[in-house]
Amino acid sequence: MAEATARRRRRRAHDHQSGNTGPEQLPWRHIVNPNPPLAPLSAEQLAEIHDMSMRILEDHGIEVVSDRARDLYRKAGAVVDDDTHIVRIGREAVMETIAKAPDTFTLTPRNPERAIEIGGNTINFGLVSGPPNVHDRVSGRRPGNFDDYQTLIKLGQHFNIIHFFGNQAVAPTDMPPNSRHLDTYRVNLMLSDKVFSAVSIGSGRTRDAVEMIAIARGKSLADLVDEPATFTNINVNSPRKLDTEMADGAMQMAALGQATIVTPFTLMGAMTPVTLAGALAQQNAEALFGIMLTQLVRPGAPVIYGAFTSNVDLRSGAPAFGTPENGKANVIGGQLARWYGLPYRTSACNASNCVDAQAVYETEMALWGAVMGHGNVVYHAAGWLEGGLVASFEKLIVDVEMLQAMAEFLKPIDLSRDAFGIEAIGDVDPGGHFFGSPHTLERYRDAFYEPIVSDWQNNENWQQAGGKDGTERATALWQAALEAFEAPAIDPGRVEALDAYIAQRKLEIGDDEPTSPIELP
Amino acid sequence: MAEATARRRRRRAHDHQSGNTGPEQLPWRHIVNPNPPLAPLSAEQLAEIHDMSMRILEDHGIEVVSDRARDLYRKAGAVVDDDTHIVRIGREAVMETIAKAPDTFTLTPRNPERAIEIGGNTINFGLVSGPPNVHDRVSGRRPGNFDDYQTLIKLGQHFNIIHFFGNQAVAPTDMPPNSRHLDTYRVNLMLSDKVFSAVSIGSGRTRDAVEMIAIARGKSLADLVDEPATFTNINVNSPRKLDTEMADGAMQMAALGQATIVTPFTLMGAMTPVTLAGALAQQNAEALFGIMLTQLVRPGAPVIYGAFTSNVDLRSGAPAFGTPENGKANVIGGQLARWYGLPYRTSACNASNCVDAQAVYETEMALWGAVMGHGNVVYHAAGWLEGGLVASFEKLIVDVEMLQAMAEFLKPIDLSRDAFGIEAIGDVDPGGHFFGSPHTLERYRDAFYEPIVSDWQNNENWQQAGGKDGTERATALWQAALEAFEAPAIDPGRVEALDAYIAQRKLEIGDDEPTSPIELP
Repeated sequence: MAEATARRRRRRAHDHQSGNTGPEQLPWRHIVNPNPPLAPLSAEQLAEIHDMSMRILEDHGIEVVSDRARDLYRKAGAVVDDDTHIVRIGREAVMETIAKAPDTFTLTPRNPERAIEIGGNTINFGLVSGPPNVHDRVSGRRPGNFDDYQTLIKLGQHFNIIHFFGNQAVAPTDMPPNSRHLDTYRVNLMLSDKVFSAVSIGSGRTRDAVEMIAIARGKSLADLVDEPATFTNINVNSPRKLDTEMADGAMQMAALGQATIVTPFTLMGAMTPVTLAGALAQQNAEALFGIMLTQLVRPGAPVIYGAFTSNVDLRSGAPAFGTPENGKANVIGGQLARWYGLPYRTSACNASNCVDAQAVYETEMALWGAVMGHGNVVYHAAGWLEGGLVASFEKLIVDVEMLQAMAEFLKPIDLSRDAFGIEAIGDVDPGGHFFGSPHTLERYRDAFYEPIVSDWQNNENWQQAGGKDGTERATALWQAALEAFEAPAIDPGRVEALDAYIAQRKLEIGDDEPTSPIELP
Repeated sequence: MAEATARRRRRRAHDHQSGNTGPEQLPWRHIVNPNPPLAPLSAEQLAEIHDMSMRILEDHGIEVVSDRARDLYRKAGAVVDDDTHIVRIGREAVMETIAKAPDTFTLTPRNPERAIEIGGNTINFGLVSGPPNVHDRVSGRRPGNFDDYQTLIKLGQHFNIIHFFGNQAVAPTDMPPNSRHLDTYRVNLMLSDKVFSAVSIGSGRTRDAVEMIAIARGKSLADLVDEPATFTNINVNSPRKLDTEMADGAMQMAALGQATIVTPFTLMGAMTPVTLAGALAQQNAEALFGIMLTQLVRPGAPVIYGAFTSNVDLRSGAPAFGTPENGKANVIGGQLARWYGLPYRTSACNASNCVDAQAVYETEMALWGAVMGHGNVVYHAAGWLEGGLVASFEKLIVDVEMLQAMAEFLKPIDLSRDAFGIEAIGDVDPGGHFFGSPHTLERYRDAFYEPIVSDWQNNENWQQAGGKDGTERATALWQAALEAFEAPAIDPGRVEALDAYIAQRKLEIGDDEPTSPIELP
């Protein structure tokens, strides 16, 4: 092993000189699941869920607060109650409309090499989004601020296993709510070159994202219709309510040819029946109803079937994630999305209060469900804690380890004659070892996945090194990643143009909610 | 929710009165995987691994230290080198011999209701076995003793998700090595009524297990041939060496009609080539070679294809578990076992020094590989730590939670009309909630898996309750389980007979190694 160790040291030294510091990690890679999806439900059972969800849309309907959205559904043949704003629609119109959505599409950020394909067997992992708070072991738990936001974007940019950013990694609560999206978009464009989501609330925040990405890419809005760059996630206000801000966000994204993820917020026992059957039927009805809206605005607009079905703690009503029910829902959500020929968004969440055993086994249940269910877009895959109330730097690191391990698990194995090494097996005496075998020495360097958090020292050495657990070790890893961080280059002229756009928009917005016209194609 | 909470309290009170204390848990259940196994390798690729492993047996051979075992192989057509003790054998003889092994069998312990089926799509989880040390948060890390052994058997008996006990939950290092197996068998028979393994080392320890189980069941050795009761795990001394103690253990078990698990100890880069291809070919060759021995002793003897392929830390040579390579090996091992029509033993291990994030994500990688690969017998599924150097009480509890969650994940969902609750969906206003819905109140009690470790309180309440992480909370859970423990009844006459057997055997053994005649059928 001495030689192996020496080689490894030399490699490390070399990596260091070449500026590649920070934890060793896997290269940027498009992950494709080579295995067939787990499919616990039969075709008959899927048809049954479909029928139930269609009955929900036909008999019970969805409340649509936005006049403009109601008009679109009415034109599509829906029966609209103008007092209750309940929209009821038949299954033929639903199926005919959603059939126009593509089954696969590509999102291209300002760096085309970071483009991600969405659909088929691809898996894209996203950073946590949405929490109002952050936590790390150095500064503790606190409301998120603009610095924390930038730190999270740096970490998400640094780690290659993160393919995209969700709606907002953390809420920068020290910035004005009506204009901070402009500042966070700027951060995403300056500190990262990966795909990031538009903030979904209303017509203005969504449009600002598309305008700013167009500037950063040196393209027009028309160009971006042909080459979509971003998506947003809208939540149905389950049960059966589509709020104006969500409808406006979806209509704006579709109008601009960008992608929308429609995700009903379906926690079993709270926003849906307590049964998985009822929750899946309702999730399916609400998701298809929202997906329909995007196709009414622009037939063929990229759209994603979103699922967020988990259960609540029936003692407190608190949301639970990474439960067996959540794992099953993540798998079956994929079956439903494929049944409609739509890409699938799912999540890898947990409800723990700290980065402990619970945080990890809950996350793994959700993650394996997401991967076995062929989730194309896995939200909250790194950094999510406390059921979404906290973005945790240490959890982000532990999740990067888990995501990298999953990516390696999915990598097909090499069964070449050389790989088998039958001769090497003959060269080692019975009861001997392969450490010094040429077959080993030629391959050891890249033979195995090299973990960033796992510590395999024996107990004595581990104790002498401080006896730190994985979560404690994660602190030094996010600190090293931040030290190693390098912002990707961007044309100065485009930065000027971005800043001019932001200044102009802040003037327009003033103290109001940011809105923008939705121009139907 | 008030009503739900009140009902739950009433139920708890009732459970308590009925003596059902200790953490709430799932009932004893035979777990069957309803999903098809994950099958990353094609039939051609499996045939390729088979061909390579046959070439290993034909060209390189296996060193067999036992004269008696070598004779059996020679009679089966093997070419034996009497200087090197290398046994080379052709693929026809191998395939013809292993074809006699059953694809499924049942093991019946002293309580027939705890019988386990091994083969097909069944999954049986076993307690950690083999560590020399124990750890818990109250008494710390220490060499295992007889008290610790009894504690582990109580915990394994208490938790219904544990289906069997492995070779020895922990080594009782305070007892004489040559006779302590008699004392540990007595503990297994007095404190538990589940299947437990014989200690595999030599002809005596294995036979003593079978003799004592026969006494506890009120049966003869002949009866147990028709109704097998126990198994043992033998390790091939990889690469390519079968030690006498292991061969004797396997031959004795087969002679007595009991089951043997043949598990090559194949850590990639140390005991096998550094490649998964080479490791799998060698594992397959060594496993089939050992399985062959059991069929040469007794055609049709129950036997299990064992796999333990993982990698080492190439910096230190230390074993690593729960790596992506280990996860893949667990899945592919199942493909190989099914290819030969044999039941499959795998494991859920980790290499962490404490019950932390690493311990859990490594265990989950191995466990999901084991379950997706349709492992019939999952060794070390609860309590394994430090790569097998420690049996941890807190890890055992965290693993019970993970295993229960897995069992629930595998449970098919109810898609009955009642379950859908379409009417209930119509009865709740848009944007409302289902907490008070009759459909919820009728079902909430058993709607979701109820975790034992997970804590879903909000952060403030969790902090006020002491801010304990999952591992800290696990301490109170194993303590409560021990308080709730009740030893299963056993006929006093049989206990007397057991004690008489133990006394007689200790006289016979004296200071020698325990041996017993192997009577070929």
